[in-house]
Amino acid sequence: MKINNIVITGRMFQEVQTILEKEIVGKNFRFLSESEVTENDLGWADAFVSFRPSPIFELSHLKWVHSFGAGVDSFLYKREWDERVLLTRTICSFGQKIGEYCLSYILRELQCHQKFNHLKKCRVWEPIAPKFLHEQTVIIYGTGVIGQEIARLFTTLNMTVYGVSLSGAKKDFFRKVYPITGQPPLTTANFVINTLPLTGSTFHIFNGHIFNSLSETIFINVGRGATVSDDALVTALDKGNVKHAVLDVFSEEPLSLSNPYWERKDVTLTPHISALTSPEEAVTCFIETLNKIENGKRIENKVDVKRGF
Amino acid sequence: MKINNIVITGRMFQEVQTILEKEIVGKNFRFLSESEVTENDLGWADAFVSFRPSPIFELSHLKWVHSFGAGVDSFLYKREWDERVLLTRTICSFGQKIGEYCLSYILRELQCHQKFNHLKKCRVWEPIAPKFLHEQTVIIYGTGVIGQEIARLFTTLNMTVYGVSLSGAKKDFFRKVYPITGQPPLTTANFVINTLPLTGSTFHIFNGHIFNSLSETIFINVGRGATVSDDALVTALDKGNVKHAVLDVFSEEPLSLSNPYWERKDVTLTPHISALTSPEEAVTCFIETLNKIENGKRIENKVDVKRGF
Repeated sequence: MKINNIVITGRMFQEVQTILEKEIVGKNFRFLSESEVTENDLGWADAFVSFRPSPIFELSHLKWVHSFGAGVDSFLYKREWDERVLLTRTICSFGQKIGEYCLSYILRELQCHQKFNHLKKCRVWEPIAPKFLHEQTVIIYGTGVIGQEIARLFTTLNMTVYGVSLSGAKKDFFRKVYPITGQPPLTTANFVINTLPLTGSTFHIFNGHIFNSLSETIFINVGRGATVSDDALVTALDKGNVKHAVLDVFSEEPLSLSNPYWERKDVTLTPHISALTSPEEAVTCFIETLNKIENGKRIENKVDVKRGF
Repeated sequence: MKINNIVITGRMFQEVQTILEKEIVGKNFRFLSESEVTENDLGWADAFVSFRPSPIFELSHLKWVHSFGAGVDSFLYKREWDERVLLTRTICSFGQKIGEYCLSYILRELQCHQKFNHLKKCRVWEPIAPKFLHEQTVIIYGTGVIGQEIARLFTTLNMTVYGVSLSGAKKDFFRKVYPITGQPPLTTANFVINTLPLTGSTFHIFNGHIFNSLSETIFINVGRGATVSDDALVTALDKGNVKHAVLDVFSEEPLSLSNPYWERKDVTLTPHISALTSPEEAVTCFIETLNKIENGKRIENKVDVKRGF
């Protein structure tokens, strides 16, 4: 496939422009903010590159859409997609980044940061024994490139790591992978981490059925907000099935000021930062993908639009 | 050497008694709280086992003293020691434990836990990009078994790790080891970790000379409190050479209520918990050491009383 005209938009289009103009020749680019993208641009372009569709968005003249993020639900979820248009996504160091994010909150819990912080405020010297990584069992939902990289990091640190995926297919670095219909060892999990994409099959997959099986578990969501039923999570926090929730993604982003999560002491919020794409990584992945497309090579980061990821 | 009569004391003497009585036969034990230890007990005993000398303490009839901790400054620092008495110390998973302690505070900083906690209280959604382990430079003072285990962990996680020791001798897992009189790359260190024991040579080794070379560095002390000049650390915090201090050990423990560290937001305090000896590990190391002594084998955990560690 030959790509000549490319629209690049989204929050970091200017940084991408600075880097890309040094790296690539022989292509026509339009670097635009999301609100500047017109029907004319979309009629002109062979390719559209961004984190999500622009307010005016139309597939009909495009050959290729490339997502700067790993998640493509903004393009696919509850939308029609013309399968003749190739959809690719950015794969870079997301797994390593999310792994360190998760590890930081696991260690915060094991090393009692919050308790010691509170004791310091009260000027109380009270030794509490930390817990250690090798004693911990973690269940990771999603065994794709991101889930696998987290599992690799945690296995290196001698944690016991199980996976859950649609198929339950065996993957490296997981002691065992369960199908979503199976029975992973939820009752003994110290930590449950969600890395699932948002698709028709994963909407509200974290509901009372999963949460009721947990016991004082720390739940970390680095996948997509709408894979979790917020009502079920709040109930699980109130009942103690979930001891603390660490949430980087939400059904609605930015989180509205009235959302009860802001108030809860048993919820940690971060503003969707566990796997930010850097402009450098975004450009590298974009150029690699473009080269593969034009040279007819296998595209590992091609999205299966039927599955939704 | 033959050991028959053993006094076991210190804060966990009862847990040790429960485990030890199942494990060992043919020895005479007295399990006592520290205040119960009398001159009579010390005259009867071949061996004294504890974290530190009891209030009544006397070497003259002892053949062997074994420390339940890794640090032996309570036995040696500013005290006389009769070199005919063997001194050994506990070596177990301290390095791994302290490594996870340090890693937890490194990741807290890189993942901006405190900033996000503050933003949550203000209900502000403000993405800040985390930093990552592979970008970090760490200097570890002390390259013994503990320092080396921390270096092993950090190297596995792709951090750049330098060491500082009295001799500057090369050690595994350190990119380079500098002698204490040398010039480690302090100006580029993101984190400086102290694991040094307290001896005549290390008292107040962290003074203005080291701190003035730092720039917005996180300083973590898991060695001994008196290796740091508190006045110099406070000055370094005030001047910004040290951005934040994470202190697990202090010149005076428990820390007095009037100590200014309690008040400072740029100081994290934990009550000497980064390497607690578990009763199980204490007993294992004690029995191994006893067997080596009685069978004339090499004792790796023998303390060089002249060096003080």
